[in-house]
Amino acid sequence: MNETIKQLLNHRSIRSFTDQQIPQEQVNLLIRAAQHASTSNFFQQYSIIDVTDPAKKQALAKIGNQHYIAEAARLFVLVVDLHRNAKIAEAKGQQTDILGSTDFFFRAFSDTVIAAQNIVVAAESFGLGAVYLGSILNDPQAVIDLLKLPKYTFPAFGMAIGYPNQSPQLKPRLPQENVYFENEYHSAEHPLEDLKAYDHDVNQYYDLRDANRRVDTFTNQIAKAVSGKQSENKKKMMDTLKGQGLFTY
Amino acid sequence: MNETIKQLLNHRSIRSFTDQQIPQEQVNLLIRAAQHASTSNFFQQYSIIDVTDPAKKQALAKIGNQHYIAEAARLFVLVVDLHRNAKIAEAKGQQTDILGSTDFFFRAFSDTVIAAQNIVVAAESFGLGAVYLGSILNDPQAVIDLLKLPKYTFPAFGMAIGYPNQSPQLKPRLPQENVYFENEYHSAEHPLEDLKAYDHDVNQYYDLRDANRRVDTFTNQIAKAVSGKQSENKKKMMDTLKGQGLFTY
Repeated sequence: MNETIKQLLNHRSIRSFTDQQIPQEQVNLLIRAAQHASTSNFFQQYSIIDVTDPAKKQALAKIGNQHYIAEAARLFVLVVDLHRNAKIAEAKGQQTDILGSTDFFFRAFSDTVIAAQNIVVAAESFGLGAVYLGSILNDPQAVIDLLKLPKYTFPAFGMAIGYPNQSPQLKPRLPQENVYFENEYHSAEHPLEDLKAYDHDVNQYYDLRDANRRVDTFTNQIAKAVSGKQSENKKKMMDTLKGQGLFTY
Repeated sequence: MNETIKQLLNHRSIRSFTDQQIPQEQVNLLIRAAQHASTSNFFQQYSIIDVTDPAKKQALAKIGNQHYIAEAARLFVLVVDLHRNAKIAEAKGQQTDILGSTDFFFRAFSDTVIAAQNIVVAAESFGLGAVYLGSILNDPQAVIDLLKLPKYTFPAFGMAIGYPNQSPQLKPRLPQENVYFENEYHSAEHPLEDLKAYDHDVNQYYDLRDANRRVDTFTNQIAKAVSGKQSENKKKMMDTLKGQGLFTY
């Protein structure tokens, strides 16, 4: 098994960081690694915002409701970006309505997430730790305002990166047969029975974990999340997207 | 520079493959690498369909209008999957309406793309080549029917993987200052002037490329794509998503 595979199979999200800064040379390599990932039709429809202003880091930590957001050496926001290409097309006298389509948004979203994962892989190869911050979407409009995101852009998520100050257990993943199918989708007829052993593993994982005393099973977590209340900001996410000129059709 | 970084910076999409098969042990490691990536709230909302049936591979090649789709040793379809968790929640007596929200779709889309990029990184570490197949979204409904994708699922893209039968030039990426900003988004005031040198590089890249005689600049490609006609299937992508129970709000 090569080093890259070993690293991928050992991934843990890191949420506690030391004060050590990341050498700028390595930060540049993280961005280069992101840029060398695939993009749909080579349109490169993402941008990366490196949030260094302490007040903005605090604002994002508040939006995400997680103190460690402001404590990482680096805080990136990954932006789905159809704006750059809109400016190019406009400068060439073209209409840009097509960039508001679901199809173009999906391509740009894919570009953004692919680039983001290259940053995580690159960071871990340097011994850094990283965590995706979906929580900044607790209030997408606030992120848009804070980072001055123009028409045809939307924040996908944040990412905190730094030297790990914790070494979490590896979280057990779903059994392969639940996520990997041959030739067609397989819908589970007895999902709870099928996942009984996995539920036990997840429960044990939480029981052993130091950082957090929550003890739960996988299927209980899912049921709770699905039955949970959604905030008003989440309910109106599509309105926020449309406000950015996205998902017009 | 470590091996992982070298590999990430040397990524090329591979669209021509030898007949050599991929050892099953390696295929399993690709899936394991995908599974060990981060997912939003640990909900693991993606699935991977390994299309081995030659008739289905041909059908996908026809949808994507690219012969190499059927010629790769492996053909995966990456599926945004909120269905599995819907079944779990239903089995626990919960309503699943929340899974039709934009917020949940975005999380599941991110899970899917993050997992996909781990497959690409893992594959390249084995000396394999891969290419994302956004083209299967030429007809999402046909893919849904072909792979029997149930409610709350949607195909994100395909992925062809195999031993490379070509060694393409490295494609020049946008200058870093165009995609990487500090603290806030920077909208280009003079995009064509800013990208003049890059346009020259891209033009030269196409000029030197053997496989394809197209000679163009980056900004011309963008302008053409934005002014291009969209197929009816692309125009109605949101309807197809809604047909899967997604983006209900």
